[in-house]
Amino acid sequence: MMKELQKFAVDTRRKFHTFPEVGFTEFITTFEIYQLLQSLSFDLYMGKEILESNERFGVPTAGEIEASKARAIAYGVPEAFAEKLDGGHTGVVAVLDTGRKGPHIAMRYDIDGLPIIESDKAGHVPFDESFQSRHPKEMHACGHDGHISIGLAVAKYLDVHKHELTGKFTIIFQPAEEGLRGANSIVQKGWLDNVDYFMSGHLGINSLQAGSVAATADQILASTKFDVAFTGKSAHAGVEPNEGNNALTAAATALLQLNAIPRHRDGTTRINVGRLSGGSGRNVIADEAVMLVETRGETTELNQYMYEEAVRIIEAAAAMHNVKASIQFMGQGLGSECDTEWIQIVKEACKNNSDVKEIFDVLPLKASEDASYMIDHVQRNGGLATYMIFPSLLPAGHHHPEFDIDEDAIRTAVSVYIDLINYLQHQ
Amino acid sequence: MMKELQKFAVDTRRKFHTFPEVGFTEFITTFEIYQLLQSLSFDLYMGKEILESNERFGVPTAGEIEASKARAIAYGVPEAFAEKLDGGHTGVVAVLDTGRKGPHIAMRYDIDGLPIIESDKAGHVPFDESFQSRHPKEMHACGHDGHISIGLAVAKYLDVHKHELTGKFTIIFQPAEEGLRGANSIVQKGWLDNVDYFMSGHLGINSLQAGSVAATADQILASTKFDVAFTGKSAHAGVEPNEGNNALTAAATALLQLNAIPRHRDGTTRINVGRLSGGSGRNVIADEAVMLVETRGETTELNQYMYEEAVRIIEAAAAMHNVKASIQFMGQGLGSECDTEWIQIVKEACKNNSDVKEIFDVLPLKASEDASYMIDHVQRNGGLATYMIFPSLLPAGHHHPEFDIDEDAIRTAVSVYIDLINYLQHQ
Amino acid sequence: MMKELQKFAVDTRRKFHTFPEVGFTEFITTFEIYQLLQSLSFDLYMGKEILESNERFGVPTAGEIEASKARAIAYGVPEAFAEKLDGGHTGVVAVLDTGRKGPHIAMRYDIDGLPIIESDKAGHVPFDESFQSRHPKEMHACGHDGHISIGLAVAKYLDVHKHELTGKFTIIFQPAEEGLRGANSIVQKGWLDNVDYFMSGHLGINSLQAGSVAATADQILASTKFDVAFTGKSAHAGVEPNEGNNALTAAATALLQLNAIPRHRDGTTRINVGRLSGGSGRNVIADEAVMLVETRGETTELNQYMYEEAVRIIEAAAAMHNVKASIQFMGQGLGSECDTEWIQIVKEACKNNSDVKEIFDVLPLKASEDASYMIDHVQRNGGLATYMIFPSLLPAGHHHPEFDIDEDAIRTAVSVYIDLINYLQHQ
Amino acid sequence: MMKELQKFAVDTRRKFHTFPEVGFTEFITTFEIYQLLQSLSFDLYMGKEILESNERFGVPTAGEIEASKARAIAYGVPEAFAEKLDGGHTGVVAVLDTGRKGPHIAMRYDIDGLPIIESDKAGHVPFDESFQSRHPKEMHACGHDGHISIGLAVAKYLDVHKHELTGKFTIIFQPAEEGLRGANSIVQKGWLDNVDYFMSGHLGINSLQAGSVAATADQILASTKFDVAFTGKSAHAGVEPNEGNNALTAAATALLQLNAIPRHRDGTTRINVGRLSGGSGRNVIADEAVMLVETRGETTELNQYMYEEAVRIIEAAAAMHNVKASIQFMGQGLGSECDTEWIQIVKEACKNNSDVKEIFDVLPLKASEDASYMIDHVQRNGGLATYMIFPSLLPAGHHHPEFDIDEDAIRTAVSVYIDLINYLQHQ
Repeated sequence: MMKELQKFAVDTRRKFHTFPEVGFTEFITTFEIYQLLQSLSFDLYMGKEILESNERFGVPTAGEIEASKARAIAYGVPEAFAEKLDGGHTGVVAVLDTGRKGPHIAMRYDIDGLPIIESDKAGHVPFDESFQSRHPKEMHACGHDGHISIGLAVAKYLDVHKHELTGKFTIIFQPAEEGLRGANSIVQKGWLDNVDYFMSGHLGINSLQAGSVAATADQILASTKFDVAFTGKSAHAGVEPNEGNNALTAAATALLQLNAIPRHRDGTTRINVGRLSGGSGRNVIADEAVMLVETRGETTELNQYMYEEAVRIIEAAAAMHNVKASIQFMGQGLGSECDTEWIQIVKEACKNNSDVKEIFDVLPLKASEDASYMIDHVQRNGGLATYMIFPSLLPAGHHHPEFDIDEDAIRTAVSVYIDLINYLQHQ
Repeated sequence: MMKELQKFAVDTRRKFHTFPEVGFTEFITTFEIYQLLQSLSFDLYMGKEILESNERFGVPTAGEIEASKARAIAYGVPEAFAEKLDGGHTGVVAVLDTGRKGPHIAMRYDIDGLPIIESDKAGHVPFDESFQSRHPKEMHACGHDGHISIGLAVAKYLDVHKHELTGKFTIIFQPAEEGLRGANSIVQKGWLDNVDYFMSGHLGINSLQAGSVAATADQILASTKFDVAFTGKSAHAGVEPNEGNNALTAAATALLQLNAIPRHRDGTTRINVGRLSGGSGRNVIADEAVMLVETRGETTELNQYMYEEAVRIIEAAAAMHNVKASIQFMGQGLGSECDTEWIQIVKEACKNNSDVKEIFDVLPLKASEDASYMIDHVQRNGGLATYMIFPSLLPAGHHHPEFDIDEDAIRTAVSVYIDLINYLQHQ
Repeated sequence: MMKELQKFAVDTRRKFHTFPEVGFTEFITTFEIYQLLQSLSFDLYMGKEILESNERFGVPTAGEIEASKARAIAYGVPEAFAEKLDGGHTGVVAVLDTGRKGPHIAMRYDIDGLPIIESDKAGHVPFDESFQSRHPKEMHACGHDGHISIGLAVAKYLDVHKHELTGKFTIIFQPAEEGLRGANSIVQKGWLDNVDYFMSGHLGINSLQAGSVAATADQILASTKFDVAFTGKSAHAGVEPNEGNNALTAAATALLQLNAIPRHRDGTTRINVGRLSGGSGRNVIADEAVMLVETRGETTELNQYMYEEAVRIIEAAAAMHNVKASIQFMGQGLGSECDTEWIQIVKEACKNNSDVKEIFDVLPLKASEDASYMIDHVQRNGGLATYMIFPSLLPAGHHHPEFDIDEDAIRTAVSVYIDLINYLQHQ
Repeated sequence: MMKELQKFAVDTRRKFHTFPEVGFTEFITTFEIYQLLQSLSFDLYMGKEILESNERFGVPTAGEIEASKARAIAYGVPEAFAEKLDGGHTGVVAVLDTGRKGPHIAMRYDIDGLPIIESDKAGHVPFDESFQSRHPKEMHACGHDGHISIGLAVAKYLDVHKHELTGKFTIIFQPAEEGLRGANSIVQKGWLDNVDYFMSGHLGINSLQAGSVAATADQILASTKFDVAFTGKSAHAGVEPNEGNNALTAAATALLQLNAIPRHRDGTTRINVGRLSGGSGRNVIADEAVMLVETRGETTELNQYMYEEAVRIIEAAAAMHNVKASIQFMGQGLGSECDTEWIQIVKEACKNNSDVKEIFDVLPLKASEDASYMIDHVQRNGGLATYMIFPSLLPAGHHHPEFDIDEDAIRTAVSVYIDLINYLQHQ
């Protein structure tokens, strides 16, 4: 049966790859997950049942959500279904309670895509094999299509074995991981209360031959996501160049100076201005500019250092150019440490797993994850939490138009999760 | 009759103010001009008859033109009419040949709006009196609505007096003056050949009490308009910040350094990056960025200095950040000098004009104008050319969301043009 | 006799060219001027008699003044003489009162050099003909050596003709014109009170064939000179890069942004950071940096615009990098306009002057001059003031290591001043 | 006897603290070391015997070396002695060969100071207790005064016990560690050939209670030191701002952009522009600027990444401003790893050492060291090498004007080295 589930996961991944949707606009994605789950023996939850509405970070504009909803309806999502996700309350939580005494195991799979235009060059497998994105400006460029499919394969396994299993299983198909926007609202709604074992993970990350697993990840970077709006005064650039207050110059100044925040003695830090746009006509001094920023740090303190530096720089850049800057919080992730007990657990659970060629104690994530909110919550309540990595050779890095996953990593992940579920039954 | 024409011009201006369209997308504007002219005794020309298609600069994308065309059809422009303007061949040329010996007088009125969101604050007259833009992101923020209406009033005058007048009259309703994109294509089509007297001009510019005219303008700045596209390589900003080639950083670098091109010994220069946008997701190193730039100079040489500095800076900014920069030419204006004979002509022509309280020999334009191509062409062929200014107190500068014109300046302009037409008859 | 005076001026200029001294350290220069004047019939004034000590701007450090004084003593300046100039009170005022009724004519010649290393390339005339600077880091790179020699030739003329002349003559050999530092202190001491005619001028400026004179100059730019000190915190750049507050980064930020102050609608502006130095060891975060800045404007208002922008930028650059900035005022020049009466005066005075091939009404200075304080003071008291230009072809611009003057311009200037003195006798 | 040696080391450190000399100018320092060693039973080597002249990096100018030599002679260093160090060949190598079979143990102590002005605030111990620097612009702000004194105490110990010891001892008093300039030239001369055990180390670094030792250090950062000279063209900043090519603007551009080199996926990197100076007069466009730069990386590869990015940025900054940049290599350190055998060695050797309260296996250096050349050479030849750390609470970081060492760390270091020497005798 494992081979069948693995094949299902790969096929399903290719399907989900075709309709990537960015965070909190996953209407088609949520619908397709729901469709596949509804024939199984799970209690399914959606909309405001799963997300604490005001605890979501960085919700898109109503217009953006509506556009995605309209696209979903055109795709075939029933209008009534789409209504349940209104206002960007996407995602599904699937619960299987065996009624038998046993551990409460929660798993989280993130489901959103990225605002990236997928490559259409020969050699890019999704293009060559015709499952590339049908959405012109969105792409599953981080492997969440694979995460969804792993979660669905695990769900199918649980459904088949529901009579033999004990305890309770919560599978979270989380929206809006990109930007660290969705997890907190799920935690706040209580879905991670009373969890004994929490597992999540990521495909790729380390470009190594597929077929291995890292029992835990380190370097889960704390991160803050925020938008900055600069507001100045427009003027005719030829007639009275001195009369404008140039918001675009302020933004460009901030961008360059943010990149130059000094490295920190205590460890890894990151800064990125991922997007900047401003100005109107060519011959008009720009009166507004907006930029999307993120800071990161190996610890919550290091991220805080970066964020405080960033704020001071942004405010000074605005003062320098006589414009106003307003900073809007958009998302956040914590610095996390996995419980080291998982190293032994994974090794034991997978010792006979022929899909797993190598088990690493730990591999670095070097990125941020809002699963950190779930990890933190589970650990505070006495549970054990891990974030695994399923490496794959990567033709291009994550978030790149030519990003792709060796599907063997998906096969490995399916079998690892299933082995772990079985192993944890008896702990 | 003058009062009537002046009232017509003011009313017409308010109408045109409501549907501003940016350059080469003036479908409604062209239609409404055509409607008002077709009952008069002019031969009317449109589309590729008036514009040498490949000599237009900075034509918008097909998508942008189509969107404006669709809006025009929704507005009521007949589809067949819109087809004539296909591909952005907007504008009208109206010719009246009296058949009697006399001078060939050409007048040019520009018709395009700007991509600016009009103010909806109390005190902004178009808002208070409900003739503000119906187009959410476009605005007549430079007075071209007034120019159109002056041209139409002049046309009505010529029509009424056609039996008394001699020589030939060419009235050019030119698209895409903003960005200096349309005039050259009209010149290349031959409409300025054999012109004896060329008149154009601008409302506002100098914030002075309305009711005056400058017989000529100086400081008509040469200008080059161009777009710059930076292309780098995206990467995950957390995982592998060193793997990206950041196009946005290159663009921000170029922007700041362009602003710092040294002033020039020989006179006025200008630089502006009016718009910049780049990047995709917040946590992705930006792989592309685009900026809209213009240089200006008091002479063609000074503009050339600015342009050459700009090119070197842009290329170095790209090299610095290991990205590619490509520069696309978008429009150009020459440095012009009006013929000083016009000082005497205007003074004589208007000596009994009670609408004109003051005649300046010259006022500075301090901006660029693609009428410069027409001025240059007429002067090379032995004609006399001027660019007049009709000052108005300005509540806000040109290209500002609160820009507005004292309509008395329109009244003055109508009477000045008519006096000049009559005066030139006898030269 | 004119030929003899002209030869004297050229020879004298070559002598003064060899020992340039920067402002307020002109010990040798003052001594040599004094030596040449003391045999003539002038009352000579020096030291605190001529300069209001606290009204000098940008006085060098005691160490710099002492070093120059020591050099002068080594050169042969008597110690007692040098003492009179103590604390940087250099320069000479020479007064000839004929005792006969007549106008009070004041002339000002500036005497300081620049901190520039003179060219030692073949083709540079002072090098080829062995009168280049003997001071390794100073140079007469602005022609003040010529100004001194013109003033001395005029003094000799006055001395010879003292019995025929009427009225009073004040010849001011002013220190520290570079940086606009000396003139104010002379004005404050009263030397320009009750002056009927004030004349000053400059060699070169416009690279035109020598032998001409501009009766007046325009574009005498207002200017403010100031130093900025940034103070941060040092730290080991490898061990704890986040612990420093980088004063050098703040200074570099300010420098780039100062260069980018927007051009102004109303006319010419200038900005320059002429010098920047900061930091200590290579592996230490720099805790201090100093920069020398100047702003200019075609009018006092335009200079004020530049200065205010500069201050805001400097303060914001400091805030951005968490360092302190302190701004120290170092010198200032006003925006001046010469009295247009001088156009007629110069034309009449020189109508038979065979050394003058062309008289311009006006030529642009495009620079700043603290003679502006004298011009302003004389004009406020009802006198007439001009600033003449004596053009010369220039192998390299002013303040360039290869700067040099066609000595014919010196000859022309000597004869123009003498003609003017004679002409003004009878006004 | 240990107490006595420790007291000697502390006293000696205070003495050396008063005459800090920067790298390759340690005339007084070398003389005083020599004086203290010459009564002992070492063979002493100096000058070109110890340094391969052309393999020194970043040798100061002849003028700087001469000035320091003159100061030393004024201090009392015999002229004949100073001659031996001519051209900056400072430092001493002291060799004791027991003639008995045993290991060859080499120890290296660096002797140079920094170009930092020492604090004269109350609370700074060297100031309070009157042993602060007598050299106005130099300071032992990195603890090398302590290193010298530890080395001398060890030498005294060896001398006393020379009849009991076996093998050979080489004590290297190395010049010019700051800037990573001296070690390579000693290695190239062969002093590290055939060494069995190499020990070096640093006081401070980690601000911990004195009395501990780290058996090894990690994070010994590879580093490249280089100077950049920008050469442009000067011009009068008021008259012809467009005629200059501004070297200072190029340098400021490079500085800001160097600070913004992206962090690297694979680990720690550093960049610093420690000093920048350029320009001449305030009103002159700067035609030259020089900056002192260093890159670092956790590995040689990471340093190489930083260096290559830096070179590209510097060249682009020059191209951007139309100036020339030339890069001069000034020093280099490798990325090193200590042999882990030392953890056991130190623990065994010091197990009865009452001065050592804690032994760390490893502490991070987070800085660069040219001892890396020695470590690398010894390891390649089969020897074992370590770099120990002797922590101290630090009132201010290394290279700070208020830097100081808890002298207990010196005492600890003396006893650790002696215990190690004794222990290694028997390995």
